[in-house]
Amino acid sequence: MRVGDVERAAERIAGHARRTPVLEMSPGLFLKLETAQHSGSFKVRGGFNRALAAREAGALPEAGLIAASGGNHGLAVAYAARALGVRAEIFVPTVSSPVKVAGLRALGAEVTQTGEIYAEAYEASAKRAAATGALEVHAYDHPDVVAGQGTVGLEVLEQTGGVDTVLVAVGGGGLVAGITAAVAGRARVVAVEPELIPTLNRALAAGGPVQVEVSGVGADALGASRIGRIAYEVTSAAGVGSLLVPDEAIIEARQELWRSCRLAAEPAGAAAFAALHSGAYVPAPGERVAVIVCGANTDPATLGKRAG
Amino acid sequence: MRVGDVERAAERIAGHARRTPVLEMSPGLFLKLETAQHSGSFKVRGGFNRALAAREAGALPEAGLIAASGGNHGLAVAYAARALGVRAEIFVPTVSSPVKVAGLRALGAEVTQTGEIYAEAYEASAKRAAATGALEVHAYDHPDVVAGQGTVGLEVLEQTGGVDTVLVAVGGGGLVAGITAAVAGRARVVAVEPELIPTLNRALAAGGPVQVEVSGVGADALGASRIGRIAYEVTSAAGVGSLLVPDEAIIEARQELWRSCRLAAEPAGAAAFAALHSGAYVPAPGERVAVIVCGANTDPATLGKRAG
Ligand SMILES: Cc1ncc(COP(=O)(O)O)c(C=O)c1O
Ligand SMILES: Cc1ncc(COP(=O)(O)O)c(C=O)c1O
Repeated sequence: MRVGDVERAAERIAGHARRTPVLEMSPGLFLKLETAQHSGSFKVRGGFNRALAAREAGALPEAGLIAASGGNHGLAVAYAARALGVRAEIFVPTVSSPVKVAGLRALGAEVTQTGEIYAEAYEASAKRAAATGALEVHAYDHPDVVAGQGTVGLEVLEQTGGVDTVLVAVGGGGLVAGITAAVAGRARVVAVEPELIPTLNRALAAGGPVQVEVSGVGADALGASRIGRIAYEVTSAAGVGSLLVPDEAIIEARQELWRSCRLAAEPAGAAAFAALHSGAYVPAPGERVAVIVCGANTDPATLGKRAG
Repeated sequence: MRVGDVERAAERIAGHARRTPVLEMSPGLFLKLETAQHSGSFKVRGGFNRALAAREAGALPEAGLIAASGGNHGLAVAYAARALGVRAEIFVPTVSSPVKVAGLRALGAEVTQTGEIYAEAYEASAKRAAATGALEVHAYDHPDVVAGQGTVGLEVLEQTGGVDTVLVAVGGGGLVAGITAAVAGRARVVAVEPELIPTLNRALAAGGPVQVEVSGVGADALGASRIGRIAYEVTSAAGVGSLLVPDEAIIEARQELWRSCRLAAEPAGAAAFAALHSGAYVPAPGERVAVIVCGANTDPATLGKRAG
């Protein structure tokens, strides 16, 4: 994964994914607002890049796109498929909330509820893909997906005029890997993970991806139980460190984003900001820091009523 | 009111008010996100400019700032006073919600509840200002307030690389007047008003400010019952037209901003977008349009649950 891969992705997805705005919350502190991205998270970038790269290669099948995820990745793949005029089949575990399933259907996706956990839904989707020939869009561990997510990093550098540090939340690691590749040699990346989902943290300690238990407020979006292979390789080679934050810090950061900026972030979307807001990450004097606010698929009723 | 007045205001308030981001929602359609402004609306721009201009002139009194408003203007003046380290006294009518009063107090303002309607609270504040010598910050009809609000217009031109048209909601008209002065000769301004609060519309028809009845979903923020003198002069001289939108269009526009961009806008904040979304304003092919999303002080529980 090189910056050139990310630059090619940026050309591909221009006009499909939004170039989201950057808010300078206070001097030198930049929030990248993927909250305003189509489908409510950065995930459409990877989805579009995977599908468009396949189309360029003449390999976007009749059967369309297929993915397993009741969360942001599923919404993103459904959104991208609709925008590109192809079918989307999304596999979700039976525990998925009716609201999420309805959301996927509203985007025109065919939804199959199967298996009790994500891994089972994933297996069913892989089997189905083999049968139909649909293009599998992995949630993080595919080079085109990683390169697509990395476009966030290119935009941050352009829109801020450069930063020293980028704080990024980690699930399976597609976002952090893509951004690491995008800003290589130009900014430092710090991965932020909930204490209850330390996939990259444990992998860096163990010298390779390991299975971890996942729970807590970020689990619906950051809850991959093992860091992706690409993410491990890219981040460990680049010397990216992982910082852990407790769930209370994430909850408080989410409230602060609402209170101070009227931003609706889901817990995963507030995780990177939590590192700053809780003092887990303290910038040096004059350090320019970008924080990726990566998702907004949240019930706004839980944001609190007011302002400052 | 000239562009130079607005440029001076921009220099003054830099570092106090946020330079809010612009979202290109779709090609050529730019949303100016004053939702992310300190205190949740553009109103701090005028408040800071009024107070800082007074301070420059050595006329920022010991007694601090005084204003009448239980809404966004009150929050903005309380915010600006706290930031500048001076006192704020805010007069609100007795009907103001306890949530708003608590919000003002949380910002450190001294709150006086008096009078049954805004006009009575305003009279009490003017009397009190005469007694204490505090600096009155009018909600719209003061040149420094208008010039401060106009900085939104300068930023829009800079951040978009230029637009043909700016859509702006109108209450007392400080925002529309400031923006009209800011973009004079460079972009056209279209005023948008709820059908139930046609202050500028009626004034333009009558050839001068007239009293109107106000009601509907925008009344808490756009509910001035007469257009300001400065606003009437600036907009009528510039040939600004007023477009009316029904309340249902405002409600739908607000939902669409949430659905498509996860933006929390209050009804007044969605009014200008309503003109586009409802088809009341139809841009020409290739026309570049900026929409000011001017306020976010809303109960997020009313935004609806999801996404597309
Ligand atoms: C809002 C949000 N943030 C962060 C992530 C983590 O992304 P990745 O799996 O690429 O690390 C996700 C994944 O779904 C997400 O939805
Ligand atoms: C959110 C919002 N939009 C628009 C306006 C109208 O501003 P003006 O009175 O300058 O026309 C207000 C006034 O309070 C407001 O709070």
